[in-house]
Amino acid sequence: MDILVTFDENYIPPFKTMLKSFMASNHNYDTTFWLIHGGIDENYLNDLNDFCKSYGAKFKQISISEKYFEDAKITDRYPQSMYYRLLAPIILPESLDRILYIDPDTLIINKLDELWNMEFPEGKIYAAASHAIIGNLSDNINKLRLDTDHSYFNTGVILMDLKKARKIVDMDEIIKTVNESKDIELILPDQDIFNTMYGKYTIEIPDEIYNYDARFYPAYLLNSGNKHDLDWIMSNTCILHFCGKRKPWLAQGYNLFTSLYKYFMYKK
Amino acid sequence: MDILVTFDENYIPPFKTMLKSFMASNHNYDTTFWLIHGGIDENYLNDLNDFCKSYGAKFKQISISEKYFEDAKITDRYPQSMYYRLLAPIILPESLDRILYIDPDTLIINKLDELWNMEFPEGKIYAAASHAIIGNLSDNINKLRLDTDHSYFNTGVILMDLKKARKIVDMDEIIKTVNESKDIELILPDQDIFNTMYGKYTIEIPDEIYNYDARFYPAYLLNSGNKHDLDWIMSNTCILHFCGKRKPWLAQGYNLFTSLYKYFMYKK
Repeated sequence: MDILVTFDENYIPPFKTMLKSFMASNHNYDTTFWLIHGGIDENYLNDLNDFCKSYGAKFKQISISEKYFEDAKITDRYPQSMYYRLLAPIILPESLDRILYIDPDTLIINKLDELWNMEFPEGKIYAAASHAIIGNLSDNINKLRLDTDHSYFNTGVILMDLKKARKIVDMDEIIKTVNESKDIELILPDQDIFNTMYGKYTIEIPDEIYNYDARFYPAYLLNSGNKHDLDWIMSNTCILHFCGKRKPWLAQGYNLFTSLYKYFMYKK
Repeated sequence: MDILVTFDENYIPPFKTMLKSFMASNHNYDTTFWLIHGGIDENYLNDLNDFCKSYGAKFKQISISEKYFEDAKITDRYPQSMYYRLLAPIILPESLDRILYIDPDTLIINKLDELWNMEFPEGKIYAAASHAIIGNLSDNINKLRLDTDHSYFNTGVILMDLKKARKIVDMDEIIKTVNESKDIELILPDQDIFNTMYGKYTIEIPDEIYNYDARFYPAYLLNSGNKHDLDWIMSNTCILHFCGKRKPWLAQGYNLFTSLYKYFMYKK
């Protein structure tokens, strides 16, 4: 498998937690972690390389110029690096046919091979989940806000058909859209851009399996008629996504999944 | 390491969960799981052997006659097999110098080598933790009840110095004490017997590290002056013990550690 991550130095610790959980469930695959970054210090890159190696994975990194997005909307919570995933089809080597982008604020708790091997329908280049049902900003509001008729996709997990995407994704268009967005009121900057530009090219995958919002256990349970309880999740869910401001590595309160997160966080 | 377990067929699934968690943290050691049982079906034993092997551990089993304890106090929650640990120094082969008994209703979340290699002080043959502080039946009540002046030990985790124990532990004495106990009001049958017979030979080890009662997070936190929070536990605690009636594999309510338990329960 080829996994894409894009982060700055602040997200190295949660990435390591994600990787440890990934390898605990997916150790049977030959996996390369690809990092697209805006100039992370070489010492950190060497450490990341050693870390991946020690868990039996490969590590490759691609530094891209920060100048591309110098006018983009950036905050502490939404660093520039979050835009890099948009460029993946252009920046990653031609030899890669597909890649799975995963946010570093996640845990991988089951095998990802079914997602990795999924077929894309005609006209679709990305696969992503929507968090509409469990009630972030509701699907309808986002559709209205962005004037789209497809689901509002969460960009925390995106399987990319790079072969097809290379024919559609245009670098200049992305950079232009990102840089112009600072003048518009974006609630979730990178996600809004992804949905506006590529929502129509994206096939929906179930969030309860591939992008489970760890804040909303009661909502998932209720919406599934009590089917998606903790037993179901641990048997079926592949990716737990610790969305929102209260990150488990920052010790701000607990939810049902915090002990599992911290287990991997401190696992030697 | 040599790990001792004693259970009947009902406890095979939680044992497997425990073993999976054990191997996730202690895969670097050459480990044998020893099962003392009262006649588990051969198909189950073969399955257990294959299971241990698939995780890189060895499995050895010793069947002992159920007749030994035929008059002992037995309930659904306290099956006869719980007494078998008392016989370990006599039943296990002379070639073993020490063994670590672990209840199957536990998760192993950190390396056990420090416990495994601990030195026993003069006159002590066992090492176990007390749950006095976090407030089950309090230490004082149990001391009074059993008329002892040492801590009241929880028998869920016992490191045994078999070499020394063989000189002290007497089979006839154990069987007599167990069988007579049905006439006395025992609150925790095997534990009361262990404490009465061997409490004075037992050195205390910290429960927050080696026998953490998963029901009492708030009490541990309070008693440690907020030191033993979830971060501390995941860095330091080796054995989480799911004490009490509400077992996590029976889906009766959740505590802070249920998601971690169920992760290992369903881990493939």
